[in-house]
Amino acid sequence: MATIYFAFPGNESLTQLILAEEPTGIIGSFELRNFPDGETYVRILSDVKGKELVIVCSLNQPNNKLIQLYLFSKTAKSLGASKIKLICPYLAYMRQDKVFKAGEGITSHYIAEILSSYLDELITIDPHLHRIKNLNDVYTLKTEVVHAAGLIADWIKNSIPNALLIGPDSESEQWVSKVAAKAGAAYTILEKVRSGDKNVKVSIPHVEKYKDRTPVLVDDIISTGRTMIETLNHLKDLNMKAPICVVIHPVFSEDAYTLLKAAGASRIVSCNTISHESNVIDISSLLVK
Amino acid sequence: MATIYFAFPGNESLTQLILAEEPTGIIGSFELRNFPDGETYVRILSDVKGKELVIVCSLNQPNNKLIQLYLFSKTAKSLGASKIKLICPYLAYMRQDKVFKAGEGITSHYIAEILSSYLDELITIDPHLHRIKNLNDVYTLKTEVVHAAGLIADWIKNSIPNALLIGPDSESEQWVSKVAAKAGAAYTILEKVRSGDKNVKVSIPHVEKYKDRTPVLVDDIISTGRTMIETLNHLKDLNMKAPICVVIHPVFSEDAYTLLKAAGASRIVSCNTISHESNVIDISSLLVK
Repeated sequence: MATIYFAFPGNESLTQLILAEEPTGIIGSFELRNFPDGETYVRILSDVKGKELVIVCSLNQPNNKLIQLYLFSKTAKSLGASKIKLICPYLAYMRQDKVFKAGEGITSHYIAEILSSYLDELITIDPHLHRIKNLNDVYTLKTEVVHAAGLIADWIKNSIPNALLIGPDSESEQWVSKVAAKAGAAYTILEKVRSGDKNVKVSIPHVEKYKDRTPVLVDDIISTGRTMIETLNHLKDLNMKAPICVVIHPVFSEDAYTLLKAAGASRIVSCNTISHESNVIDISSLLVK
Repeated sequence: MATIYFAFPGNESLTQLILAEEPTGIIGSFELRNFPDGETYVRILSDVKGKELVIVCSLNQPNNKLIQLYLFSKTAKSLGASKIKLICPYLAYMRQDKVFKAGEGITSHYIAEILSSYLDELITIDPHLHRIKNLNDVYTLKTEVVHAAGLIADWIKNSIPNALLIGPDSESEQWVSKVAAKAGAAYTILEKVRSGDKNVKVSIPHVEKYKDRTPVLVDDIISTGRTMIETLNHLKDLNMKAPICVVIHPVFSEDAYTLLKAAGASRIVSCNTISHESNVIDISSLLVK
């Protein structure tokens, strides 16, 4: 039986790429908009009775989308949908996964609870996990996590001859080293050197070896871009080539993208987990059954 | 034991007015903001363990606020709050209370379900009820509904000598007649006269009697303002004095307030259920225990 795919606003291109590889998937027809007073209107035009549905919706700027998802899903179930799977390339609310300061809650868990209460399945790409080791420690629905590292490695291998992958900190080493190995590229991790309380410089061990290489900064997510911009500024001091930035989730809140371009990156490349003009690496194949 | 009141953003003035009449209420301290990426951060600084809490939050432009309310409440419960009551002067999602077209859901019910799942009590002012006769037909928590008609009548009586209350349609008669009786004012209901398919004019029976009266248009909610603006335009044809508009819930989406002012109202007066520059009639006394 055909699965019906519903592309939420902003996820239309990715949905088309997924459907191009899903012969049993068909595109669903629906209306979803907010009234001028901010309330959401939803109407599902496809016949969903007894059907399995897939919603494609990345959760950047999540709050409005969380309410839309909830109202859409409740409507679909009221119309007899048998199962709802959410393809959520970028999953939000991953950072507040513990109480850092007294009086805080664990919003990661609360959002997991609400999504788990009305969805049946969730698939996401490289969630920003820290203390949560496995999504199912907090999500009580069926989850699947897929990884973009292979596709990023392929892209680097094919597009950047003589790349030097750079991880911004020791936390990133495990991930950067894997991408580098798959891409057949060198990698290094920035070393932070403190002189005094506020003065932080970075160094790259044996930086003279890498003068003719193209630095490639890789990270899982760019939100405000502060970390990446700081790294770009540090690299300027080391007189390396202009770096390329590669990111899985181009969240780019506020003017992050403009600031990042101005900070000296020769190119900014992202995966299409969130629709953005920097999208280059297509991750749709990861989301096909 | 003291009840702790948390004034959500935009509800600070109303909360102060309520607390001025609640000797056992104290103001709670908390942080609530969205990160640049749109995720909500919440931290409750007051000690809420074992305490009864009141959140004051009107639900105009509701989606972001619904997520903030949920995350705040879950956090408060995790910190040991014994009870959470929501003072929600304007309650959203009241319109879609049935399936008007095939494929729609009943969003009134879905929002009621989610609020009922984590709140203990709800008090609201004149919810925009149509087919739902009683909030508890859909809300499974303890609810209380209070009415602004008395305060509006008092204001008209004290401020508008020689008022003629005007209801825009027959649906409004029951409500307008009550306000008029309390205010000791005359009232009338507009009659729509159709000539042809699109040409609608209105008339007021015996309009010549009211030439020296000040027309007062009353409604429970102004959102886009279209209904009210249309009524103002009709009244111009009748050569009456410039009318005053009185509304309980000044939702005023987009440029509704500007358009309404331009449409010929001599004054626009609202209750402070939603913070707005048109607020004149203070409804805080309705929300005091």
